[in-house]
Amino acid sequence: MANTKPSIPKGTRDFGPEEMAKRNYIFNTIKEVYALYGFQQIETPAMETLHTLMGKYGDEGDKLLFKVLNSGDYLKDISDEELRDRNVLHLQSKLCEKGLRYDLTVPFARYVVMHRNELQLPFKRYQIQPVWRADRPQKGRYREFYQCDADIVGSDSLLNEVELMQIVDTVFQRFGIRVQIKINNRKILSGLAEVIGEADKIVDITVAIDKLDKIGLEKVNEELRENGISEEAIQKLQPVIALTGFNEEKLKVIADVLKDSETGLKGVEETSFILNALKKVGLKNEMQLDLTLARGLNYYTGAIFEVRALDTPMGSITGGGRYDNLTGIFGMPGLSGVGISFGADRIYDVLNALDLYPKDAVRSTQLLFINFGEKETEYCLPIIAKARETGIRTEIYPDAVKMKKQMSYANAKHIDFVALAGDNEIEAGKVTLKNMVTGEQNLVDVDEMIKQVLG
Amino acid sequence: MANTKPSIPKGTRDFGPEEMAKRNYIFNTIKEVYALYGFQQIETPAMETLHTLMGKYGDEGDKLLFKVLNSGDYLKDISDEELRDRNVLHLQSKLCEKGLRYDLTVPFARYVVMHRNELQLPFKRYQIQPVWRADRPQKGRYREFYQCDADIVGSDSLLNEVELMQIVDTVFQRFGIRVQIKINNRKILSGLAEVIGEADKIVDITVAIDKLDKIGLEKVNEELRENGISEEAIQKLQPVIALTGFNEEKLKVIADVLKDSETGLKGVEETSFILNALKKVGLKNEMQLDLTLARGLNYYTGAIFEVRALDTPMGSITGGGRYDNLTGIFGMPGLSGVGISFGADRIYDVLNALDLYPKDAVRSTQLLFINFGEKETEYCLPIIAKARETGIRTEIYPDAVKMKKQMSYANAKHIDFVALAGDNEIEAGKVTLKNMVTGEQNLVDVDEMIKQVLG
Repeated sequence: MANTKPSIPKGTRDFGPEEMAKRNYIFNTIKEVYALYGFQQIETPAMETLHTLMGKYGDEGDKLLFKVLNSGDYLKDISDEELRDRNVLHLQSKLCEKGLRYDLTVPFARYVVMHRNELQLPFKRYQIQPVWRADRPQKGRYREFYQCDADIVGSDSLLNEVELMQIVDTVFQRFGIRVQIKINNRKILSGLAEVIGEADKIVDITVAIDKLDKIGLEKVNEELRENGISEEAIQKLQPVIALTGFNEEKLKVIADVLKDSETGLKGVEETSFILNALKKVGLKNEMQLDLTLARGLNYYTGAIFEVRALDTPMGSITGGGRYDNLTGIFGMPGLSGVGISFGADRIYDVLNALDLYPKDAVRSTQLLFINFGEKETEYCLPIIAKARETGIRTEIYPDAVKMKKQMSYANAKHIDFVALAGDNEIEAGKVTLKNMVTGEQNLVDVDEMIKQVLG
Repeated sequence: MANTKPSIPKGTRDFGPEEMAKRNYIFNTIKEVYALYGFQQIETPAMETLHTLMGKYGDEGDKLLFKVLNSGDYLKDISDEELRDRNVLHLQSKLCEKGLRYDLTVPFARYVVMHRNELQLPFKRYQIQPVWRADRPQKGRYREFYQCDADIVGSDSLLNEVELMQIVDTVFQRFGIRVQIKINNRKILSGLAEVIGEADKIVDITVAIDKLDKIGLEKVNEELRENGISEEAIQKLQPVIALTGFNEEKLKVIADVLKDSETGLKGVEETSFILNALKKVGLKNEMQLDLTLARGLNYYTGAIFEVRALDTPMGSITGGGRYDNLTGIFGMPGLSGVGISFGADRIYDVLNALDLYPKDAVRSTQLLFINFGEKETEYCLPIIAKARETGIRTEIYPDAVKMKKQMSYANAKHIDFVALAGDNEIEAGKVTLKNMVTGEQNLVDVDEMIKQVLG
């Protein structure tokens, strides 16, 4: 096993110090805002039983689950015949009873059901943990990545939607990323399918019009046709798909289109409520009603939303919506919820592209003491302790090697200040403090050193 | 798959809001101190190739690794004959090429080797991530648990050991946990084995005397005998094992015992240096030279240390030591390192037992607005926004349900302040603020409300 060139599984990543500092800045910002709105953090195990995971993400999802081989003699309950049959799916269910978390939603539903007796409803939880998917890796798509979810379960109130939009607004304001928040409502889409006489084709319709941004109107119509939507229905859809203008105007038009659909009008009403409340609160970013926004996941039943950065091309960087019956699959029906998920990897890329990381967030050590030997170190140690007491991240180079090597260490770690103490400094009870950015250096006492480093 | 009663894999845990708040307090405290000493965070993938993991933790460790089933047709490279043979170990190597991280040390070694060209040595990294072991679960032993490691690689300087002890001292001071830090040196133990004429039995000797605390002197001697250590050698060991007194006295005695062992004397010298430096820096907690401290892991080669809480019974809550050649197994020899690992789960239990969590660390929402309906909510939303702007974690109950239900929500979440705004308050442009701890309530304007909540 010795001397092999090490590697990591494809689609996974190491995060070095600078990436970690940036990622922590992202996660901490999101966490702080979640907490500001009363969301509480939970964590669930990386492994869930396959019972919990299978059948929740469609056939494709089942395939993409990472399964964990049973410990011990994993073959003991498998007959020779079963082995001979080589039925990959069947054998898998006997070889493995655990899998890696595929998202944070199913574990959350499982958590709510298991802890129903301890939980205070409405329950506002956030969760920031990695998930694993055996997808084919490609640019921007990994087999291990973090999700940053917040959900409220046990409340139908639209105030929850309003607050989630405020959270989005606040988070991106703190990041300094200008965004557009698109909102729509599944009930509006259902109503539309209803009034154009294709209520049973609602899934096909939403999947198709969701692609408007990417493939254009012609191709959307083509796809609708391919899915057996009547030409008349497609024609009825056109004005809605092409609808532009202010949110209020759009709502008026669509309310008229949907006047015969109870569901559709409910969707319009919900959307009006959310947009009105947000107008009163006053968001910094623009909310846009986009009737072509559908979002892939079929479990959404009410408001849906999606966020895009304005100043750099990038897909959706945040999304979410209202769902009903999240916990029904685990035997606890009737619990409505609404949630949001920040796409940390894409936000990372946007912050990089726009160079928006605050210097403080990515700086590690602030002050390095040069090591001149044992006697000098002894002089420095109490000074270093003092600096750390004031919160200054301080190092002493551990080995008394050449000055040049120590200085290049300071440069590589982007350390702003270097302190030197030789015979003269020791005699004076001071240190020479060098500002690595300006190049200035001066002889200072400990208090002055601390003052200068703290800036 | 519907209506099954959900569960989680044995040995794993869900962490609810209160546990998470406490765990975050622990992790954040450790992180802050690590950063204060110039350590930088990294993260590695949960899955590593089995090539990286196998053979690093002994045969037992290999068994305890969780292996991940290959995706797709995991049987395609396995012949009928191989299946028929039912060789669990062989088949496993064909069914799985990935496993879950077993500790943070091997992934770190793998990281250092893979990133050798980007790394600035000495490299001070910390890493706080879960690890997985298929151990039989029992009280206090889990199949998923976090490790909190810091290591410096690429420096032989004993200053690193000194700083790690300062880190331990600072972390437990911040926790308010009084501890005893035990220190020893593998070179002293090697020297001892040498001078008693049993140099080749060093592992057996350290394993046996490491148990002194648990099983007592008689049983230690018995174990030494069983391992074939001569009676003469055991007798020579007795004064060393039983040695008490101040560190300086112990060092004098042991230096005399080891006078003919070059390795042993080097160990004494290293220990003296570390203890002297720490005396000058001035730790708050006691350092004790314990010549029976051995620590199980065989890769330690120099200083070793272990921390115990003084005010509650609990095993070792932190430990570490110096090792050589961490990265040799991955083809990069000659890199020395020294590291430390905080036992988060045990520290959690100690903080609970001694009731040491700061109230601020575990408090979530600070202020709850009662929901009286749409009009009142509209009045409250801008006030809530203001409270949040000052950093107050604020909620409004999302549904206009009975007052009693909303108040019991506040109680269950340990929310200290509740704000109420009905017709009177709206007319006066104020809110009624109720202190849930004292029961006091008064009519205040927004600024006064913020002042009172911020305390």
